[in-house]
Amino acid sequence: MTATPQEGRELAIMLARKTIGAMQPDAEVRQVLRPGYATSAEALTAAGHVVAVEFATIAAANNYWRDQA
Amino acid sequence: MTATPQEGRELAIMLARKTIGAMQPDAEVRQVLRPGYATSAEALTAAGHVVAVEFATIAAANNYWRDQA
Amino acid sequence: MTATPQEGRELAIMLARKTIGAMQPDAEVRQVLRPGYATSAEALTAAGHVVAVEFATIAAANNYWRDQA
Amino acid sequence: MTATPQEGRELAIMLARKTIGAMQPDAEVRQVLRPGYATSAEALTAAGHVVAVEFATIAAANNYWRDQA
Amino acid sequence: MTATPQEGRELAIMLARKTIGAMQPDAEVRQVLRPGYATSAEALTAAGHVVAVEFATIAAANNYWRDQA
Amino acid sequence: MTATPQEGRELAIMLARKTIGAMQPDAEVRQVLRPGYATSAEALTAAGHVVAVEFATIAAANNYWRDQA
Repeated sequence: MTATPQEGRELAIMLARKTIGAMQPDAEVRQVLRPGYATSAEALTAAGHVVAVEFATIAAANNYWRDQA
Repeated sequence: MTATPQEGRELAIMLARKTIGAMQPDAEVRQVLRPGYATSAEALTAAGHVVAVEFATIAAANNYWRDQA
Repeated sequence: MTATPQEGRELAIMLARKTIGAMQPDAEVRQVLRPGYATSAEALTAAGHVVAVEFATIAAANNYWRDQA
Repeated sequence: MTATPQEGRELAIMLARKTIGAMQPDAEVRQVLRPGYATSAEALTAAGHVVAVEFATIAAANNYWRDQA
Repeated sequence: MTATPQEGRELAIMLARKTIGAMQPDAEVRQVLRPGYATSAEALTAAGHVVAVEFATIAAANNYWRDQA
Repeated sequence: MTATPQEGRELAIMLARKTIGAMQPDAEVRQVLRPGYATSAEALTAAGHVVAVEFATIAAANNYWRDQA
């Protein structure tokens, strides 16, 4: 659960990154991959897509923060 | 929450862009990437896909603006 | 809201196209891109995927047109 | 609405194809594209993905055919 | 409907494969495509993605097998 | 069902991997593919996307672990 939608966005990015870390545990390899993906519109968009899917789950889990609206 | 579906579309595009900004904070790099992605049907479609997923979440969060219908 | 599922399909295609227009406002550029994407099975399928996601949202918004069934 | 899940699958494939037809109305072009996509595992999988998304919407619309179970 | 989540997984894989069969009815062509896709991480992941979407629908249809939990 | 969201994440990764195993049962082939996919940002992101979809289903199945919040 998160207090606000913004925290939900941050959690979604963190979850997406943690999954990459679980599949490629070697931090050095991830570091080597970073420049390539961070300068590719296609790769950034694909990562943004994963964040959007994770956020959809987090938002539903928090009942769209309706209790705060 | 947004007042109208149109505002929901705009929020979806903004959220998708903010995620890219969170993953590639360097505005200059994003600027360099812009021409390439903005003239690629495949990249634009992939970005449109992310917006569609974000909009699905926003629409559900706003109960599909039923209270206004 | 749309009166029928068919109108929902048309709205989904329109929304998908409007998003592309919002990300690439230059109609001439979009016109230049059209032949390439319209003759690529991969690009057409990717666009069809976005329409399917948009339609899922529109169908849920219209309660799957159950009130008319 | 469809009477059975199987009809729902068929409708999903039809909807996915109709969207391609709406975006590329020229049947001859679609015919030319057919061999290429129908012999590409990647293209067939991408098309199968669209059908899966369309089917999810159709299944929800039919309340997962629970009234028949 | 399926009795267990595991049967739901198997049904999801079967549905994904049946869709490919519906779009490319020629079993020989599918057989020719098999080695290429079965030795491509990208193609296997894309197929796994379709199975995940199909499973989401099947799980919802079975009310997440809550009646058995 | 899983006791915690973290277990849900682990189950999502396991399900995604089991599907790959079901489509490519030869462990040696999967082993050969591993280095290529584990050092490709694009492949890791695509795999992370599948995990996100599986997690969405698992989270809904567990009613977003609301009974524990």
